[in-house]
Amino acid sequence: MEIKEIKAYGTASAAQPLAEMKIKRRVVQAHDVEMEILYRGICHSDLHQIKNDFGGTMFPIVPGHEILGRVTAVGDHVSKFKAGDLVGVGCIVDSCGHCEYCGDGIEQFCDEGVTFSFNSPDKNLGGATFGGFSKTYVCKEHYVLHMPEFKDLAAAAPLLCAGITVYSPLKHWQAGPGKRVGILGIGGLGHLAIKIAKAMGAEVVVFTTSAEKVDDAKRLGADLAVLSSDTEQMALYNRQLHFIIDTVSAKHDVNTYLNLLRHDGSVVLVGLPPEPLEIGAFNVVMGRRSFAGSNIGGIAETQEMLDFCFEHNITAESEVIDIQEVNEAFQRLEKGDVKYRFVIDMASLEN
Amino acid sequence: MEIKEIKAYGTASAAQPLAEMKIKRRVVQAHDVEMEILYRGICHSDLHQIKNDFGGTMFPIVPGHEILGRVTAVGDHVSKFKAGDLVGVGCIVDSCGHCEYCGDGIEQFCDEGVTFSFNSPDKNLGGATFGGFSKTYVCKEHYVLHMPEFKDLAAAAPLLCAGITVYSPLKHWQAGPGKRVGILGIGGLGHLAIKIAKAMGAEVVVFTTSAEKVDDAKRLGADLAVLSSDTEQMALYNRQLHFIIDTVSAKHDVNTYLNLLRHDGSVVLVGLPPEPLEIGAFNVVMGRRSFAGSNIGGIAETQEMLDFCFEHNITAESEVIDIQEVNEAFQRLEKGDVKYRFVIDMASLEN
Repeated sequence: MEIKEIKAYGTASAAQPLAEMKIKRRVVQAHDVEMEILYRGICHSDLHQIKNDFGGTMFPIVPGHEILGRVTAVGDHVSKFKAGDLVGVGCIVDSCGHCEYCGDGIEQFCDEGVTFSFNSPDKNLGGATFGGFSKTYVCKEHYVLHMPEFKDLAAAAPLLCAGITVYSPLKHWQAGPGKRVGILGIGGLGHLAIKIAKAMGAEVVVFTTSAEKVDDAKRLGADLAVLSSDTEQMALYNRQLHFIIDTVSAKHDVNTYLNLLRHDGSVVLVGLPPEPLEIGAFNVVMGRRSFAGSNIGGIAETQEMLDFCFEHNITAESEVIDIQEVNEAFQRLEKGDVKYRFVIDMASLEN
Repeated sequence: MEIKEIKAYGTASAAQPLAEMKIKRRVVQAHDVEMEILYRGICHSDLHQIKNDFGGTMFPIVPGHEILGRVTAVGDHVSKFKAGDLVGVGCIVDSCGHCEYCGDGIEQFCDEGVTFSFNSPDKNLGGATFGGFSKTYVCKEHYVLHMPEFKDLAAAAPLLCAGITVYSPLKHWQAGPGKRVGILGIGGLGHLAIKIAKAMGAEVVVFTTSAEKVDDAKRLGADLAVLSSDTEQMALYNRQLHFIIDTVSAKHDVNTYLNLLRHDGSVVLVGLPPEPLEIGAFNVVMGRRSFAGSNIGGIAETQEMLDFCFEHNITAESEVIDIQEVNEAFQRLEKGDVKYRFVIDMASLEN
């Protein structure tokens, strides 16, 4: 298979900072799209994987799965894209295509396992897939999204993971008029969840540990924002919420939030805390409640989300940085010091 | 309020065995039904409450909420029952009657809290309600069930808690033809779950830690029974089940069972382990799975369950004992040494 060598940012071990390196990309095959990367968002799972928080990181690693670019080449059998098109790639770049799950458009749960944009076995070149901290990306047409012409392109990149991660459960659990939806945590995921849930017509109640974020939640569109340490105010929401999107990626107390649910309500985890969470039996048994999870979304749903966000003028609140600032950005992300998503301007790779 | 003094079995502290005592029952009020108790099942929550496992036990306690009896008197406004009727009382003996939950027939989740058959504040006499380890029971008509004429009445008593506890989630999560349902644990709840799920038309796969129960599960009607320590056989069920009814009342590993679910599947806890259970984020996030709970069922649904069980000839596998053997029975229950429900023949109270 013909290959190209390109510039990327990655690391050979969890102990080392990210630095410039060379990686290989395949030249487009019949069904492939090649893009030059314009912007890419930094996701908490980039950080988890670099640090090998879940185990199983294949080093060297080049992270990045909120990839926004412009098509530079397409394979002979590509029909939906042409050079110059604005496109996106999210977390999924391959799946079996024939199982029940792929057939139902929930490729993220593919029976044979999906190939993620980075840190998955690369079926074409061997080794691991390398993500979007790089000059270009090559991906099968089916997994490429049409990127609407957002006014602020940089701020649209985070939709490709953070956006779909919250859009999918908001839709599945039917956020909309007459529904009171809780959002737990205001970060990259949470702040988009507020905007999307509001655009869907739901009443949005935000729970945050940070006093300064209470006002910010309202600015972002929340109907109400509650400081989770304020037990008096928390008690007012006892049994009041239809469901809660839980965006917290660290160990936290879920039981408090289960008790804010109406009967048949769910706390839906979209964060990935590395440690297990403790659930008291009574908190699910009483009210027939659930502690559920949701993972990104399928390709068709991701396209639907992009179109929905474009229509409702929703993008991420982003701080645009150069690739050379990425290690500092990860340090700040670890401390929660970003409002609310770092996006790398990939033109800086040529600095 | 006029009262009667009757014989019962109870205890004044968690440290003492149950012994005969005298308790007060109100004389029937306008909407009340009084019954002489014929049989009552012993439930794991009797044991939990006597031992104060959840805290909050009000001593002295007279447990018992699987109460089967014959009507001896009715109040002036009672229209659905008359003296001589065969009746049952389950866990719920009062609720507000006007909240959304009561209106929806899920009185178990009543906004103002339900009154349980024992160990709840007694609105009529003060103190705690006293359960069915007693000569008679008095209860508002709305919470009394018509007991079909089961051939083996003793074996029908456990339906009033164990039966509805598994029937309700089996129905809610839609057990039926084309559904593969897991049952975790074969005890008082689990063995009835097998019978009811089969009668609903589902394919039933049982998981047990006990080799000797594998055969018993099949005798009870399970299509398959898997020893949970057999990792090879367990792996065959990876992503195979639509949902699992988890009847285990002690701390246990839920994650293994979450991974046996298809997408959107639920592990539904109906046991009440006193310690919290640990859930790994990936096990719910992957496959959009849920760890849910379910608590008994409403009054109308309990009547529906009794009629369903009568029609399908379903009762509990029961060991009938005298009330004088109750302390030994609790010791055996604690060790799981019962197949599968103790039922007390309350005529023995006169021994």
